[in-house]
Amino acid sequence: MASHLTHLECPRCGARHEAGRPANLCGCGSPLLAHYDLEAARRDVTRAALAERPRDLWRYAELLPVSDPAARVSLGEGGTPLLPAGRLGRALGLNDLWIKDEGTNPTGTFKARGAAVGVSRALELGVQRLAMPTAGNAGGAWAAYAARAGIDLTVVMPQDAPVINRREAALHGANTHLVRGLISDAGAIVARYVARTGAFDASTLKEPYRIEGKKTMGYEIAEQFGWDLPDAILYPAGGGVGIIGIHKALAEMAALGWIRGRWPKLIVVQAEGCRPLVEAFASGREDSSFWQGAATLAAGIRVPKPLGDFLVLRAVRDTGGTAIAVSDREILEAIQLTAREAGLWICPEGAAAVAAAGRLRRDGLLQPTERVVVLNTGSGFKYPDLVDFDLPVLEPGDDLP
Amino acid sequence: MASHLTHLECPRCGARHEAGRPANLCGCGSPLLAHYDLEAARRDVTRAALAERPRDLWRYAELLPVSDPAARVSLGEGGTPLLPAGRLGRALGLNDLWIKDEGTNPTGTFKARGAAVGVSRALELGVQRLAMPTAGNAGGAWAAYAARAGIDLTVVMPQDAPVINRREAALHGANTHLVRGLISDAGAIVARYVARTGAFDASTLKEPYRIEGKKTMGYEIAEQFGWDLPDAILYPAGGGVGIIGIHKALAEMAALGWIRGRWPKLIVVQAEGCRPLVEAFASGREDSSFWQGAATLAAGIRVPKPLGDFLVLRAVRDTGGTAIAVSDREILEAIQLTAREAGLWICPEGAAAVAAAGRLRRDGLLQPTERVVVLNTGSGFKYPDLVDFDLPVLEPGDDLP
Repeated sequence: MASHLTHLECPRCGARHEAGRPANLCGCGSPLLAHYDLEAARRDVTRAALAERPRDLWRYAELLPVSDPAARVSLGEGGTPLLPAGRLGRALGLNDLWIKDEGTNPTGTFKARGAAVGVSRALELGVQRLAMPTAGNAGGAWAAYAARAGIDLTVVMPQDAPVINRREAALHGANTHLVRGLISDAGAIVARYVARTGAFDASTLKEPYRIEGKKTMGYEIAEQFGWDLPDAILYPAGGGVGIIGIHKALAEMAALGWIRGRWPKLIVVQAEGCRPLVEAFASGREDSSFWQGAATLAAGIRVPKPLGDFLVLRAVRDTGGTAIAVSDREILEAIQLTAREAGLWICPEGAAAVAAAGRLRRDGLLQPTERVVVLNTGSGFKYPDLVDFDLPVLEPGDDLP
Repeated sequence: MASHLTHLECPRCGARHEAGRPANLCGCGSPLLAHYDLEAARRDVTRAALAERPRDLWRYAELLPVSDPAARVSLGEGGTPLLPAGRLGRALGLNDLWIKDEGTNPTGTFKARGAAVGVSRALELGVQRLAMPTAGNAGGAWAAYAARAGIDLTVVMPQDAPVINRREAALHGANTHLVRGLISDAGAIVARYVARTGAFDASTLKEPYRIEGKKTMGYEIAEQFGWDLPDAILYPAGGGVGIIGIHKALAEMAALGWIRGRWPKLIVVQAEGCRPLVEAFASGREDSSFWQGAATLAAGIRVPKPLGDFLVLRAVRDTGGTAIAVSDREILEAIQLTAREAGLWICPEGAAAVAAAGRLRRDGLLQPTERVVVLNTGSGFKYPDLVDFDLPVLEPGDDLP
């Protein structure tokens, strides 16, 4: 189960970079992607061999960047359930709806995948100090894994990031600061900090390995369906690392001979109050413009200008997908509907994708018989204030009505 | 993978009960336990065969009470990580400490195991209405699984149950009531309700199958250690179903020929403010007395008089274990220590067990080289108010210090 990582490569200008030392962006300003010797991996690991491995994401070790098993910093991430959602699907007009429930990851969100692989690779490369801006959950996840690894972490997050993420980062011992602004303001502060101190910048996509953790969602969806790909995957996109990762996983699995036939349509879901990718897709542009006045209750997708926008848009167009925005009101309704019909308390970002599935069905962009996967990126427990109920109170001697 | 369930049996008076219809307590007032044809199971399933099955708790289907796979109501419960906690262990003086992290279950706690199996069996037996009192998390979990199953559920919980559990139950559509009192008051209200309406009483241990879900923690610990049992398992006990279940699993695994040698010491952990089992153990009694004025911030172990007390005490004594109480202050300190040293945000009940591990080591009741497993029964996300930090706030133009 040795890593077949060979090098890093720029997906914009094609420049090749060494993988053996810490790396950030390409000289051209683009994120870097990890490349593997897929021919060697194809010989080393088969789909049948995978079936006997533990369920966490390290089952795909040959396609991950960490060579030394001792460098693996793990809390049991990955291997999340892919659940049929029959009744919810029927309520939305979709007869073959599934939810990939990332809320059962350590730290309660899919950010654990990126943090596990990113922190492990940083440890392997000898990095001792990390710094990053975060909308909330990535900061919490990286704080947990950095604590486990014994690596110092500095995080900066918007002052109105979910309270649970602020506490999570600080609880795990990260040097945690808030900023009266957006994640873009936090990013600027971190950029100045790393320039001054030499801490490693672990910002989304400025660090090339968190995407490698996220891509395992794509591997898992294929494997859990017996390598028979679904028709569409709906993904709530903030930075968009997950959808870039799934797209990368599809390309790798095709090269490995693990999948055949048409790839799923990759569908980007954003909030109406922050939809740079949706606008860029609609207007046929290759990258996005900074979204002024970003506002949505789904903090994880409140990213005004994703660094990897061109890679997200490439993934969507390459697979015949689309990009769609939903309202905060639709998000809240989808949380309630999913809890009652599927038994899952999903996060607002995942709820955006559920709402989008219904809308795309109504608009005829998804067909009733298509196999559709919604990525629920995290647990609703991290957002308790989005639901509230006025419950009746009894005295000990009272009877239930 | 057919169930080998044969009947229900009273562990107090030995009476045999039919398993094919809904059952509550024995006529003698004791909980009933599920029995299996272990000889047949031994022929049907081997340890090697298990290795190829999916990770969730249904891998032990032969030893679970649900016959019809279509009746399985699943959110992917079980198969939780068993994580080494080296640095945390060294801080406590224990060189081989492990945490079984139940926080990655659906609904964020180990209650998902009991709810999955209990609701599935109820569905299989044709039950259409359930009612139960709850300290909080069980109500949330049963609400999620009942919603998924399409079964009506009524829950009553103390007014000061964690806010997240109140919202969770209501969000999943359970008929949710609060009571100005303790779980024992909620239990009395539910008892009157089921007598009047014919709803099935799914109270802890009045319903014989949730323990079957909980026992899978014992199977998993054995399997995850390669069938080489640890020296001790620390379990935070409210109702104590988990420890009864683990004890039952040990007996079953021994009969199946899956384990050999000495069983782990089963150690009950309670809070100083509610320690009926600890007092009963210390005074050599076979059951506990109602604990007056129960008070601890760990809501899940605030149970003044567990119905299965005699079974818990039997499990502890049978395995050479012990029972110990820790203070709320120790619980809060253990949450912080575990987050920094192991990268896990654990629940207060799990933190009680971490604190107890340190105390038992200092008291010489655990040796430094013993392999010790702490059961963290849930995620700390469900208790965000137990940690707080005053974080510095920057303006967008500011630099990090």
